Amino acid sequence: MRRIRITVAYDGTEFHGWQVQPGLPTIQGWLEQILTGIESAPVQVHGSGRTDAGVHAIAQVAAFDLKNPIPCDNLRKAVNRLLPRSIRVTSVEEAAADFHPRFQAKEKTYEYRIWREEICPPMRRLYVFHHPYLLNEEAIRAAAPLLEGEHDFTAFAAADEKDELGRSKVRRIFASAVWREGGELVYRVRGSGFLKHMVRMIMGTLLEVGKGNLTEADLLARLQPGYPAKSGPAVPASGLCLMNVEY
Amino acid sequence: MRRIRITVAYDGTEFHGWQVQPGLPTIQGWLEQILTGIESAPVQVHGSGRTDAGVHAIAQVAAFDLKNPIPCDNLRKAVNRLLPRSIRVTSVEEAAADFHPRFQAKEKTYEYRIWREEICPPMRRLYVFHHPYLLNEEAIRAAAPLLEGEHDFTAFAAADEKDELGRSKVRRIFASAVWREGGELVYRVRGSGFLKHMVRMIMGTLLEVGKGNLTEADLLARLQPGYPAKSGPAVPASGLCLMNVEY
Repeated sequence: MRRIRITVAYDGTEFHGWQVQPGLPTIQGWLEQILTGIESAPVQVHGSGRTDAGVHAIAQVAAFDLKNPIPCDNLRKAVNRLLPRSIRVTSVEEAAADFHPRFQAKEKTYEYRIWREEICPPMRRLYVFHHPYLLNEEAIRAAAPLLEGEHDFTAFAAADEKDELGRSKVRRIFASAVWREGGELVYRVRGSGFLKHMVRMIMGTLLEVGKGNLTEADLLARLQPGYPAKSGPAVPASGLCLMNVEY
Repeated sequence: MRRIRITVAYDGTEFHGWQVQPGLPTIQGWLEQILTGIESAPVQVHGSGRTDAGVHAIAQVAAFDLKNPIPCDNLRKAVNRLLPRSIRVTSVEEAAADFHPRFQAKEKTYEYRIWREEICPPMRRLYVFHHPYLLNEEAIRAAAPLLEGEHDFTAFAAADEKDELGRSKVRRIFASAVWREGGELVYRVRGSGFLKHMVRMIMGTLLEVGKGNLTEADLLARLQPGYPAKSGPAVPASGLCLMNVEY
């Protein structure tokens, strides 16, 4: 049995997220269906983590086991021929037998893009959150690096994030920065891992700072263990993209 | 009665082209439906020209007459609230009573984009033609300016381009150039006007030059009056975008 590691790019617009859901198009579902056909036996695909419905990826990482001896290059081409054009396998390689894309991920990078002008170009609409309203962008830029370091992100996790006993909500953020690219405000965050909805709730909280509804002190308070409420609200999925997973 | 001039951007992917077609979504159809609602009387929208199904626009120009005294800024906002996000009216202004977007257009600019690498990024797929196969790009770059000047483009018109008596197929091309932008080969052409499918047939012919199937002399022969056959084939609509119309 070979363990194969793949890198996957996708336009999340038309999918119900990464994870298999019976009867709904998902990225994992498409990959498993095609690989099961190639293997003539059930193939389970394990991602570095789930992405929500509508979230995009430049380089999601996943792995699966295969008996079929097909060379990696041919497998990439075969899978891409069968996938919709909104999903592309950008690399296929042999991995160590114990490679696990979720448990061994060391860091992940996400970007969140906000279109700031009144009119959102039709060809950008699926890849940004359109928010043309007044914001103190300088305050957002200044607040973003406060997330860096090791913090308890309980306040930045979806209400239904699993509350397993002993499963820590402490994560380390290596870099957290905001800048402008033309009409877009870009937030890039690199961390050891992310809870469900975490990036979108951080972005939503930074927007509250930009609106003057929260101060830097309020943001820091939400990073203290035992903070009593959920932060947010989460911003829409369309602006979010998984850029990279490091091992 | 006011004559109003608008500039329109659209992602052509989901539309059956610019022109109204009963029962099918088109850009003109959407605009007329919304403006008729605002005017409470039928409004006809005249574009600078048609774009085919799947062709995009950054700045199509159109005009219509309105009795409603709504200020231009408010009209732009009202129309954009009612349009799908794949169509945006980027400007609205009062025009001269005799302004006609088709007959008075002095020049138009189109771009055609070809994705040259094996894997087309999912988020670019709707806005390029994916052609990763061997091409002599230098030959294409060298041939593109040969289109400049005044020529009979009969060989570069769709077979069903209207053959009205006395309607010339001579057009003047002011600039015709090819260059690389990362993984994309970009063709930009600016001319006095374009026949149906003309840009896509020029691009298809330039690709034949890049494949070594046609020489520069073959290309020039197709620009002579009386050339006996159609050129082409036309490349797919997804790579084409109307960039600008000048008056």
